[in-house]
Amino acid sequence: MYRTNTCGELRASDAGRTVTLSGWVQRTRKMGGMTFVDLRDRYGITQIVFNNADNAELCDQANKLGREYVVAITGTVAERSNKNPNLPTGDIEIIATSIEILNRSDIPPFTIEDNTDGGDDLRMQYRYLDLRRAVVRRNLELRHKVCFEIRRYLDGLNFLEVETPILTKSTPEGARDFVVPSRMNPGQFYALPQSPQLYKQLLMVGGFDRYFQIAKCFRDEDLRADRQPEFTQIDCEMSFVEQEDVLQLFEGMVKHVFKATKGIEFDYQFPRMTWADAMKYYGSDKPDIRFDMRFVEIKDLTEGHDFAVFDSAAYVGAICAPGCADYSRKQLDQLTDFVKRPQVGAKGLVWIKLEADGSVKSSIGKFYDDASLMAIAERCGAAKGDLILVLCGEPMTTRKQLCELRLEMGNRLGLRPSNVFKPLWVIDFPMFEWDDETQRFYAMHHPFTMPKKEDIPLLHTDTGAVRANAYDMVMNGVELGGGSLRIHRPDLQNEMFELLGFTPERAREKFGFLMDAFRFGAPPHAGLAFGLDRFVSMLAELDSIRDTIAFPKNNSGRDTMNDSPAEIEQEQLDELFLRVELPKH
Amino acid sequence: MYRTNTCGELRASDAGRTVTLSGWVQRTRKMGGMTFVDLRDRYGITQIVFNNADNAELCDQANKLGREYVVAITGTVAERSNKNPNLPTGDIEIIATSIEILNRSDIPPFTIEDNTDGGDDLRMQYRYLDLRRAVVRRNLELRHKVCFEIRRYLDGLNFLEVETPILTKSTPEGARDFVVPSRMNPGQFYALPQSPQLYKQLLMVGGFDRYFQIAKCFRDEDLRADRQPEFTQIDCEMSFVEQEDVLQLFEGMVKHVFKATKGIEFDYQFPRMTWADAMKYYGSDKPDIRFDMRFVEIKDLTEGHDFAVFDSAAYVGAICAPGCADYSRKQLDQLTDFVKRPQVGAKGLVWIKLEADGSVKSSIGKFYDDASLMAIAERCGAAKGDLILVLCGEPMTTRKQLCELRLEMGNRLGLRPSNVFKPLWVIDFPMFEWDDETQRFYAMHHPFTMPKKEDIPLLHTDTGAVRANAYDMVMNGVELGGGSLRIHRPDLQNEMFELLGFTPERAREKFGFLMDAFRFGAPPHAGLAFGLDRFVSMLAELDSIRDTIAFPKNNSGRDTMNDSPAEIEQEQLDELFLRVELPKH
Repeated sequence: MYRTNTCGELRASDAGRTVTLSGWVQRTRKMGGMTFVDLRDRYGITQIVFNNADNAELCDQANKLGREYVVAITGTVAERSNKNPNLPTGDIEIIATSIEILNRSDIPPFTIEDNTDGGDDLRMQYRYLDLRRAVVRRNLELRHKVCFEIRRYLDGLNFLEVETPILTKSTPEGARDFVVPSRMNPGQFYALPQSPQLYKQLLMVGGFDRYFQIAKCFRDEDLRADRQPEFTQIDCEMSFVEQEDVLQLFEGMVKHVFKATKGIEFDYQFPRMTWADAMKYYGSDKPDIRFDMRFVEIKDLTEGHDFAVFDSAAYVGAICAPGCADYSRKQLDQLTDFVKRPQVGAKGLVWIKLEADGSVKSSIGKFYDDASLMAIAERCGAAKGDLILVLCGEPMTTRKQLCELRLEMGNRLGLRPSNVFKPLWVIDFPMFEWDDETQRFYAMHHPFTMPKKEDIPLLHTDTGAVRANAYDMVMNGVELGGGSLRIHRPDLQNEMFELLGFTPERAREKFGFLMDAFRFGAPPHAGLAFGLDRFVSMLAELDSIRDTIAFPKNNSGRDTMNDSPAEIEQEQLDELFLRVELPKH
Repeated sequence: MYRTNTCGELRASDAGRTVTLSGWVQRTRKMGGMTFVDLRDRYGITQIVFNNADNAELCDQANKLGREYVVAITGTVAERSNKNPNLPTGDIEIIATSIEILNRSDIPPFTIEDNTDGGDDLRMQYRYLDLRRAVVRRNLELRHKVCFEIRRYLDGLNFLEVETPILTKSTPEGARDFVVPSRMNPGQFYALPQSPQLYKQLLMVGGFDRYFQIAKCFRDEDLRADRQPEFTQIDCEMSFVEQEDVLQLFEGMVKHVFKATKGIEFDYQFPRMTWADAMKYYGSDKPDIRFDMRFVEIKDLTEGHDFAVFDSAAYVGAICAPGCADYSRKQLDQLTDFVKRPQVGAKGLVWIKLEADGSVKSSIGKFYDDASLMAIAERCGAAKGDLILVLCGEPMTTRKQLCELRLEMGNRLGLRPSNVFKPLWVIDFPMFEWDDETQRFYAMHHPFTMPKKEDIPLLHTDTGAVRANAYDMVMNGVELGGGSLRIHRPDLQNEMFELLGFTPERAREKFGFLMDAFRFGAPPHAGLAFGLDRFVSMLAELDSIRDTIAFPKNNSGRDTMNDSPAEIEQEQLDELFLRVELPKH
């Protein structure tokens, strides 16, 4: 037997018991005639003591243990004289009577500590050692718990978890698919699913009523900092429901998960905001409402002062940064540099200070007298000591720039603490997005989204104004999930394909089986999907999703631990009737 | 609101309530001035009544409803005069006051009934309609429940569910991999995992202690009748355990699932049988022990009678079929034909009847006197009226033939009822299998399996005799799962690779990262994996795994519903630097 107990469970009440523990040597310390070994497993750390006076040979063995050796140690539990209050096992130690070395270890390439000396690349290459670190492991324990609680919640509400295929058919209108050549069907390919969207709608047609799945999804996109080619989605769909049913039910799920994993109770209904308001007041479809600092439109107040920059702009918007009137010239320059960065793209920044003494100062004082500036300050709700920051230009572009500035000010003012959680439903998304390049409309959510009933008459007359029954759950400025009511009537679905520029042939080729299915009595249905990786990283208060994933890939889609992807044998290519033709350099 | 209740929940106590139900029209019947509609959803069927005398227009609407129309019906719950005891809702009906047609339906290509008129191919092409059939849906409800209970059981024992990658590296020594070309790493491929084997071992190296995952796995094999290119595995691994710990824990899991899903309690420890005994007594490593009929070796009793067939055979084995002494010549000929089929491959069949009157008759009566035949019958434990069937030849080959014959007799005698469950652990598998063709040993389980400690000295002297710490859970002659203790010491693992014919270079290329990991303190560990599809089909008492899967593929690996795999665009191939070169016919 390798162990009677884990390294995390012994307490003072166990004193006197003979136990065997197994684990890894975290560290050894020699003090006088004693040797102390910290033994670690998933459950904790326990101190083992060897006394040279009692057993010199055993103590000698202990002195020779290297870091990360795997050992089984038998001994007697003793209450410590100098207790360690920082360790759950800190009241006891084990007086060792024997050691068995189960495995030796080379010196690890980085320290197995919460604050390791290993950089990201090294940690990923030796991920199995990185996983020994409690800070990494805890994220994956949390992920396990989140999934379990989601399943418990949905199972309790009659949802069925159904596995949909991974080897499936290319989905259109989305990102690039990963494809899988079929040996048994030469020249043909499966695609890995970007989401189980079509399957879950077919399950609704199949009468499954309430479906969910914690599903692997795949996108062959150039990876931005925090994306993975495979990711996990909490995928849900329901029949015979209205939007309100979906919002209530999944708001309940998020509340359940927060309570079960973090003990946080949201004792209020999540606020809701239309997409139009989100854009108007926050310049984003995922506003961070941990802090207010809403946009204030001041175009009308700026007119008639011959300030060409504002006069030529369709939109002039301001935010009020509380207590920042004492910003120095240098700090204001930094903010100007910030908004002029190519990622933000503003031409410049206007500021108005409402000083502590009630006077105003501004970068546009030449054009505006104090009364005019005070009028702006007043509309912005500025108090003495506040700083007003103004951007102008084309409305949508400027709002996005102002959004970046607002978030930057939130960061500077410490208004975005990672342990405060502010959920928000964003609703009433537009149905379509116009693309200037291809001169056509695209579905903002996807082509199966149900337009608002009252907007259906606008489909052909004012396409861009049509709103969708689509909704996103946003938290702290991050989109946790989103979904929509689906079209269930074949005539409306065909109309939608037409508006989105699918020829009947192409629609048939791509969605034929879905259109077939809809001919046989599709129920009204709706659903949504949460990004699990993102949800866990929110709960874990991490900036990146990477440490919520056991074996993540790097920004080139590589697993540096096992060095994949890799070349395959010629024989494998031959069996698939494939030839690789690399570009010549 | 589409419904106040489901079609499965209303009872006599609800009489008088006004309700709205939504669902599919199962059937409509006109009787006198009444029209009855059976409305169906996932939860059941409720009868709706329309009275022509009360509301002729509404009744007319009801008469026009087609099969599988989706409707919302409002009305009053009434207790029925002629109750239907076969239906949970059979005590009530709904007196309709309004109908809303939510969607029409074409006439479905087969009937949505438990006994449908649709053949397999049609059912698969319209799987979304097939899924509406209660018999199919119940299997998927069961699958959901099995998964949930497995998770509940393992979570309660501190197991962590960890997702391992789907885009991974080619695993060796197994079946053929599906591969996925990487656009970002031109000319390189990911492989889809045949199992998370290496990752779960790395998680043990990473100190995760107890891991599980209900994981999608992939094998690009020519599909036999009951295989799928993607399948689901309950994958588990534990650290610091002996074989006994693993057997106890997962026996507990199987017991938990049977109890939770079928109310069946196994109040005994599952029997265990060595692989050697399983082969000796049942000719199979997965004996069906729902019935006994063990093999009896009678070679010694057959000698000295100048019967060349037996004399030249290394093995003569018999089974005793109770009560079959009255088999006719025709029945015996059928059995002879059965064992001579190419799938079985015996040369012939010898029979001995112990007649009801105590006399013996045999197909080899010419060579053996009654006393000799009685001696055989006695050793076989035959009673009056029993039939003894004998095969002979090379031991292993003959045992496999006798196994087929035994199962056939079990079927004929009704000894294999699908609602009786007989679990069995088969243990002590051989470590290696000799392959005549390539003249080398292969790992019977996989190359990471730990040999029995006492057999390690035989590794180089009597390789074929080395037994492994490997175990299978067998039920009713089906392998539900299997696993092994793993090698955790790098020296032994290297020795194993060498015995299996891996050059150091190839071992490095294929398993380098695992060997690296093992240098840093791998704990003793062990695990196993259950086939989820098979497990569910066992619980559902199905012959095939297909109906435990929502969207299965056919024997050519095709999904006939969405017609995948399919050709992809030239542009996609170009991005991957791939060319398809089909063979010319």
